[in-house]
Amino acid sequence: MTDVRTAGTLPTTMRASVLYGVGELGVEERPVPVPAPDEVLVEVGSVGVCGSDVHYYQHGRIGDFVVRAPLVLGHEAGGRVVGLGAGVPQQRLGQRVSLEPGIPCRRCDQCRHGRYNLCPDVRFFATPPVDGAFCQYVAVPADFAYPVPEAVSDDAAGLLEPLSVGIWSCRKAGVGPGSRVLIAGAGPIGLVTAQVAAAFGAIEVIATDVAAPRLDAARRLGATGTVPAGTVLADGDAVDAFIDCSGAAPAVDAGIRSVRPAGSVVLVGMGADAIPVPVPVIQGRELRLTGTFRYANTWPLAIALAAAGRVDLDALVTGHFGLDDVSAALAASADPTAIKAIVTPQR
Amino acid sequence: MTDVRTAGTLPTTMRASVLYGVGELGVEERPVPVPAPDEVLVEVGSVGVCGSDVHYYQHGRIGDFVVRAPLVLGHEAGGRVVGLGAGVPQQRLGQRVSLEPGIPCRRCDQCRHGRYNLCPDVRFFATPPVDGAFCQYVAVPADFAYPVPEAVSDDAAGLLEPLSVGIWSCRKAGVGPGSRVLIAGAGPIGLVTAQVAAAFGAIEVIATDVAAPRLDAARRLGATGTVPAGTVLADGDAVDAFIDCSGAAPAVDAGIRSVRPAGSVVLVGMGADAIPVPVPVIQGRELRLTGTFRYANTWPLAIALAAAGRVDLDALVTGHFGLDDVSAALAASADPTAIKAIVTPQR
Amino acid sequence: MTDVRTAGTLPTTMRASVLYGVGELGVEERPVPVPAPDEVLVEVGSVGVCGSDVHYYQHGRIGDFVVRAPLVLGHEAGGRVVGLGAGVPQQRLGQRVSLEPGIPCRRCDQCRHGRYNLCPDVRFFATPPVDGAFCQYVAVPADFAYPVPEAVSDDAAGLLEPLSVGIWSCRKAGVGPGSRVLIAGAGPIGLVTAQVAAAFGAIEVIATDVAAPRLDAARRLGATGTVPAGTVLADGDAVDAFIDCSGAAPAVDAGIRSVRPAGSVVLVGMGADAIPVPVPVIQGRELRLTGTFRYANTWPLAIALAAAGRVDLDALVTGHFGLDDVSAALAASADPTAIKAIVTPQR
Amino acid sequence: MTDVRTAGTLPTTMRASVLYGVGELGVEERPVPVPAPDEVLVEVGSVGVCGSDVHYYQHGRIGDFVVRAPLVLGHEAGGRVVGLGAGVPQQRLGQRVSLEPGIPCRRCDQCRHGRYNLCPDVRFFATPPVDGAFCQYVAVPADFAYPVPEAVSDDAAGLLEPLSVGIWSCRKAGVGPGSRVLIAGAGPIGLVTAQVAAAFGAIEVIATDVAAPRLDAARRLGATGTVPAGTVLADGDAVDAFIDCSGAAPAVDAGIRSVRPAGSVVLVGMGADAIPVPVPVIQGRELRLTGTFRYANTWPLAIALAAAGRVDLDALVTGHFGLDDVSAALAASADPTAIKAIVTPQR
Repeated sequence: MTDVRTAGTLPTTMRASVLYGVGELGVEERPVPVPAPDEVLVEVGSVGVCGSDVHYYQHGRIGDFVVRAPLVLGHEAGGRVVGLGAGVPQQRLGQRVSLEPGIPCRRCDQCRHGRYNLCPDVRFFATPPVDGAFCQYVAVPADFAYPVPEAVSDDAAGLLEPLSVGIWSCRKAGVGPGSRVLIAGAGPIGLVTAQVAAAFGAIEVIATDVAAPRLDAARRLGATGTVPAGTVLADGDAVDAFIDCSGAAPAVDAGIRSVRPAGSVVLVGMGADAIPVPVPVIQGRELRLTGTFRYANTWPLAIALAAAGRVDLDALVTGHFGLDDVSAALAASADPTAIKAIVTPQR
Repeated sequence: MTDVRTAGTLPTTMRASVLYGVGELGVEERPVPVPAPDEVLVEVGSVGVCGSDVHYYQHGRIGDFVVRAPLVLGHEAGGRVVGLGAGVPQQRLGQRVSLEPGIPCRRCDQCRHGRYNLCPDVRFFATPPVDGAFCQYVAVPADFAYPVPEAVSDDAAGLLEPLSVGIWSCRKAGVGPGSRVLIAGAGPIGLVTAQVAAAFGAIEVIATDVAAPRLDAARRLGATGTVPAGTVLADGDAVDAFIDCSGAAPAVDAGIRSVRPAGSVVLVGMGADAIPVPVPVIQGRELRLTGTFRYANTWPLAIALAAAGRVDLDALVTGHFGLDDVSAALAASADPTAIKAIVTPQR
Repeated sequence: MTDVRTAGTLPTTMRASVLYGVGELGVEERPVPVPAPDEVLVEVGSVGVCGSDVHYYQHGRIGDFVVRAPLVLGHEAGGRVVGLGAGVPQQRLGQRVSLEPGIPCRRCDQCRHGRYNLCPDVRFFATPPVDGAFCQYVAVPADFAYPVPEAVSDDAAGLLEPLSVGIWSCRKAGVGPGSRVLIAGAGPIGLVTAQVAAAFGAIEVIATDVAAPRLDAARRLGATGTVPAGTVLADGDAVDAFIDCSGAAPAVDAGIRSVRPAGSVVLVGMGADAIPVPVPVIQGRELRLTGTFRYANTWPLAIALAAAGRVDLDALVTGHFGLDDVSAALAASADPTAIKAIVTPQR
Repeated sequence: MTDVRTAGTLPTTMRASVLYGVGELGVEERPVPVPAPDEVLVEVGSVGVCGSDVHYYQHGRIGDFVVRAPLVLGHEAGGRVVGLGAGVPQQRLGQRVSLEPGIPCRRCDQCRHGRYNLCPDVRFFATPPVDGAFCQYVAVPADFAYPVPEAVSDDAAGLLEPLSVGIWSCRKAGVGPGSRVLIAGAGPIGLVTAQVAAAFGAIEVIATDVAAPRLDAARRLGATGTVPAGTVLADGDAVDAFIDCSGAAPAVDAGIRSVRPAGSVVLVGMGADAIPVPVPVIQGRELRLTGTFRYANTWPLAIALAAAGRVDLDALVTGHFGLDDVSAALAASADPTAIKAIVTPQR
């Protein structure tokens, strides 16, 4: 472990929650990782549970990504820098950090254009075969571990990841001052997106969902109004942007029909392999439609928004769970009255 | 007819081809229109036949636009200025012109943003209840009758309209120097779009169609290659932009799957009310998809491209027809070996 | 006055403040204008005094615009619709409105691209030879008289015009969530721009001015910090955007040097005919520099920001003056401790 | 030299042309560099002489970059891959390549946004203290050595670097189909920029220069017309974009005044530390002005344009010089009738 500097003596092994197969989770001892040059070692403090973690737990796969070997879940992580690989400045030791969980190759055409989320060789936490953060220590490139100020709590440090999803979708949707935005799906991503839309200057943020408790949460957390699922907003009420966080075909159809001419549609939610879209509406209004794949260059803004209190990430947290209780955390995430469960690997 | 200046004495009536109902066409005498202030009177020289003309003739409607009263078809028109409404400079008299056939309100939010094609009150030639140009004279706002140089033939003056469709779709698709473009549907719009893509600097323009004769035409007229309908281009061959001019669901699906990450999809062809799109592909590659509705601000470039010989519109013409033969012109347009029929109202 | 509908009987003459030459102002009776088709007649309630009004009063010209005939000043106007030209819907009668003071031709290339502020034939209030709004009634195209809700005061209705200047400059500067912005010049335009920057999501808005009272005002009204005039922000403090509202060459130079690589510079303030700019800085950082000329398509957002309380226009008002006191209003505007004088033509 | 694979046995030393101080050049033996992991070793075949090489030779510095230690000049280089560092695929051995001469850190905010030319830690060939390519071998990251097809000559492989400068400036200027472009300065950069503008679809490319022989070259190589230096194009002739490749203040002033409203200005040429710009023109026309610093993501397009014959780089070459004759090559570059001298290190 030459060339690695640490804050005090670190243990050589750590505890990690490991997924062995559908519904099979266990905690095992694993070696503490050694930071490579330009990497930092992070003591993980708080990790949000994402729907994708639940999906791997319940189904063993997401699309082409199949759990073939034991996998550590969790990719919404914050912590503290406790070790430095070669070349990392000493001042980084001890910093509280938020982790961006996808490490791109930095060399391909997409990376060099600044679209590093589209890097074909990206290594993303908790995506087979790459391990995630439901464990006590992780090593990551220093520039993907962002220092956070005191105003950002440990939980919020982890939740900068879903916040980034919301930032990215609002950027893609062109949300700005005065925008009117419709958001379908009031789960964690929809709720954080509603907050981001407001922080971006939207004057109207309309949420829709099939579940009443989620609409209540939306009204508490950023939405200025709600409409029943499947509502097509009339001409005078048509929005500038529709962001789908539901993945549900009827929501996508109704949402597209609710956008004003020259408006935008962003598909964030994952669902069916093909969704029928009303092409004459897209043509007649010249709507711009896109989908999002993770995010790029969002952390600095995420930190700024959270630190300034323009979004409230702590309000999303509905439960904390230790490493031994990850299965309970995953179960809690499936409950529609819950919003965001947090795993705390040090407790 | 005070305040109207003309080049010599004009007749008071003219001949017009009128659609009375499905399959019912006749020629009747109508008054020559009087140009209002800021309008010019144009003696129509050459009018291309568009698929929409054929559709009205065969079905009596396109979507919500229904032929409820006698309608003059034709919206791809060129001619010569023979009369001036009040306020139009004298020098415009006698100019050879190309007509932009959609007149917007100039006052609504869309107009004031420069997106006048999305004006809800646009009056478009040959779209019920607005008459078109299969007749001897039309009056239009002076700024929608563009002077064309000698290098642009009479037929080409009319065909600047479909050229504008191609320009608009290539703009929306972001086609530029070095682009690789896939175009589905090698009818008149697909062919002109292929030429535009090349003129925009594309280095590869791949056409696809279900009809072999159309692929032959594509190879002659702008395409650098062709692939069988339904082909999904492999990763290494993936294009920067896919432009659908077919309206066919299988073509749209295959085309979307043929675009590289961060590429674009533009839907020009009209077809079914809903088309299934592979949402995971749009998300995973963050494709930008849009549709086109006519065009805006395309005529100056259309004229420049045609005048410079960077596109060859005359090569698209496969027949000329007098006003008495409009039904033959419409029938000819339905033949896949034909490309573009022209109606010449003065003959 | 056929085809004109009014709310009750209107007077046939009105009072107007007229500029006859440098320093020469008088009030005269003039005919109440008659709204043309598509125009509304507005009873003027509140008109802000702009630096350009002061400049015409003191110098008789601004650049190529020379006062050669008696001129009514004033272009920041709000009021109430009291008459309708032909074609204007009845419901507009009685509406409280804010006036956009530049009427473009709607036909030229710039207009049709949505850049109507660059229309070479624009007719702009209080710019020779076009009269302004320091009078009791004006007639304007209906679509340039925007209804405002109760939450927007009479004064604020007029001040949507300088607010539009701020919106336009922040749009040009690309100010958005998380932006860091430097604004030179804390006069009315600088102050309103600071408020707009904050409303656009800027997290840091730094004002600079040579006059201490103005910096005090800046700190009260939108700026998060101030720096002494001429300060060049160091690398770590460099801003995303610099907006010059001073027109002063040293401010422009220092501001440009304070922008981070790939940042933007927007020149709003008017001053010398030529200003030396540090070209190696613009090249080495690839800064984007532009200037603004009025604004386009800003009123809907201006209304939304004012109505939602995201900007406070009433806080800018430091005095009210009747039509007989326009010279006092102009004098007050030259006082650096004042911000915005208002002329109220009905009192 | 473990983990390095080569094509046959390579020499251990090479010849390099070294600048010791103003006007002092010599050839010395140096070790052949060893490619690090992910690097390739390139046998240098052809290197263009740039004005910056001449400037270092004549003045010993460019701005803040001072020659304090012996320096190898030359950064427009092509060659052949003769060695591979660890991790580089075997198929790269033997490829003819063009070198992008600025290697960014890949980790900073600018790099991650795709603006890697603005990386503060970029290491650029022939910029103190980084050596360039007037030598027989260089080692570079594999992704900055681009394979070129046979259609690109050895000289052209090197000249993809100035071609990249032209591509970058035309991109910044928004040159596209139908554009009218004014280029000041008909040296190598101006000439290549004129060719790029034409390849981007410009219909008018006007060159200007103080030297008549250069205008002759411009007319032969891409320009559609020339005007005397200092000409301000009248309104009707105003261009969409002005690209300055002269660095001369009078050219910049006249050029800015020659741009139509909403047009663009790109400053490429280097000259004085400050240039007076006509701010009222920039404001009144809302011109967008920027400068360029090298380029990013240009090589793929540069290769495509050169391979397709849309630009002719070989036509720029006016002389070849061996390593012993670098001072002659530098002298030749100062002659206005010459365009581009090439150094061939293997001869």
